[in-house]
Amino acid sequence: MAVLCIEHIGIRVHDMNASITFYQQVFGMEVNGRIDFPDAPVSLVFLGFPQSPEQIIELISGVVGEVPEEGRVNHLAFTVDDVRAEWERLKKLGIRFMKDEITRLPNGSEYIFLYGPSGEHLELFQRAPSALG
Amino acid sequence: MAVLCIEHIGIRVHDMNASITFYQQVFGMEVNGRIDFPDAPVSLVFLGFPQSPEQIIELISGVVGEVPEEGRVNHLAFTVDDVRAEWERLKKLGIRFMKDEITRLPNGSEYIFLYGPSGEHLELFQRAPSALG
Repeated sequence: MAVLCIEHIGIRVHDMNASITFYQQVFGMEVNGRIDFPDAPVSLVFLGFPQSPEQIIELISGVVGEVPEEGRVNHLAFTVDDVRAEWERLKKLGIRFMKDEITRLPNGSEYIFLYGPSGEHLELFQRAPSALG
Repeated sequence: MAVLCIEHIGIRVHDMNASITFYQQVFGMEVNGRIDFPDAPVSLVFLGFPQSPEQIIELISGVVGEVPEEGRVNHLAFTVDDVRAEWERLKKLGIRFMKDEITRLPNGSEYIFLYGPSGEHLELFQRAPSALG
């Protein structure tokens, strides 16, 4: 098994700049990276604590579709070393996936979403070499 | 400022035993602690990775009230060294809190919930000496 640790916690936000200011001012976090998508108004901004680099928050803006307030802390991503191998392993365990394909980010990182036993939204995330997100 | 790191990610579950098995089997996590409440059917179970002790998932069962599927990955908690001092600091910044009082767990840890700028559910968590959760 090669699920290594938690990769990030994804949070859906309405106003990216206001949210960045909030996480900086309230919690003392720092921006470590940003991904903007060429074909959609979606932005991902990654924040962390200097003293705790394993812990990453991913702020997500511009995704189509509103989520209820309870769903704004939205999903939990796990770091894997081989997303295809983990996908195959979990399909054999009967795990439900949201899509039947792996998605590739502009920076080369790859992921796929699955459902936990209470329907919680989880993600397998394989970081591209030298990519933060 | 004394917000130190992320404390845990809270996940609302329907069936605690099924969820513990899932996080063990699918992600290789281990149970590190459990809190049962004397006056309510609520249970909290804490899981982590042996190689990544800073990263904790809190499974929550028995809370009254259903949450939508999007809200099952439910909240994000930050570790603070003095929850009263942080509460006072953030009230002066105009941050909205869910309750006007700090809650104490059976093991002595204390917390208070607040809203992020998109309504996301966040928590300040002061761990009791020698308590996991």
